[in-house]
Amino acid sequence: MAWDMAHLAARPGSTRAVRVRPSAMPETVFAKILRGELPSHKVYEDEHVFAFLDISPLCPGHTLVIPKEPAATLDQLSDESAAAIGRVLPRLCRAVLAATSATHFNVLQNNGAPAHQAVDHVHFHIIPKLPDGRGLGVGWKVEKFDQAAGAELARKISAAL
Amino acid sequence: MAWDMAHLAARPGSTRAVRVRPSAMPETVFAKILRGELPSHKVYEDEHVFAFLDISPLCPGHTLVIPKEPAATLDQLSDESAAAIGRVLPRLCRAVLAATSATHFNVLQNNGAPAHQAVDHVHFHIIPKLPDGRGLGVGWKVEKFDQAAGAELARKISAAL
Repeated sequence: MAWDMAHLAARPGSTRAVRVRPSAMPETVFAKILRGELPSHKVYEDEHVFAFLDISPLCPGHTLVIPKEPAATLDQLSDESAAAIGRVLPRLCRAVLAATSATHFNVLQNNGAPAHQAVDHVHFHIIPKLPDGRGLGVGWKVEKFDQAAGAELARKISAAL
Repeated sequence: MAWDMAHLAARPGSTRAVRVRPSAMPETVFAKILRGELPSHKVYEDEHVFAFLDISPLCPGHTLVIPKEPAATLDQLSDESAAAIGRVLPRLCRAVLAATSATHFNVLQNNGAPAHQAVDHVHFHIIPKLPDGRGLGVGWKVEKFDQAAGAELARKISAAL
């Protein structure tokens, strides 16, 4: 997500002092939003989850769903927070579709800068795909699947669980 | 996901008779995999969730995570199944990274053909992003955010929840 600090700086509330807190986690704009130190267009909140509009959207209705737990990437997130996000995703997707009149959409969650992550706090994008083509662009270059190598890789993944 | 029926047809087990079952759901290759009527490279299974290698992968380790519940799109999935998928995603992502030595990855879930969905059964892709660039291609064309329209849209989404 290309978060636009300029937008934030122009908003009321964005100039409040930010407490510096000792933490292994890098300080992110999402941490500040969760602490109420930056404004957001909130659409949902529960004990574990916060959802708000992306202010650098691919199209209207582009929504971010984040855990309150400060994990940088999904592999570092607790089962409990991940389950809480999973549980509310269908409901949030229905609401985004209802509000935008979109019928198709993508859910995307990026991990690491090479995978297009721009804020080091787990976030799921809900992105409507509009009839005019606006929304997520998907680059899909399929490789040939090797059955023997696949069987071995499946065994390795299963063993690593 | 561009599911390759030719691969499946060449595999043992793929020629077993498929029971025709009355259902509002379209019959999909994933339903057949769940019923054991088509083979798969399984990596994980629990009461609600099944995970296996995509045989039309973007790169080695490309894994599909699906609910056993036969929902076509995420907005139609039960909270319980969605929570079960969410809960196991971090664990599956760690295992895929461990088995592939990748450090970056994308999680993608498509809904509707225009949003690049090819099988009408909910599936989350876990796609390693390799150092040589293989993995998911992300097209990201950001629009200007209108604060007033955003506030109104956030209100509409929130009201639709």
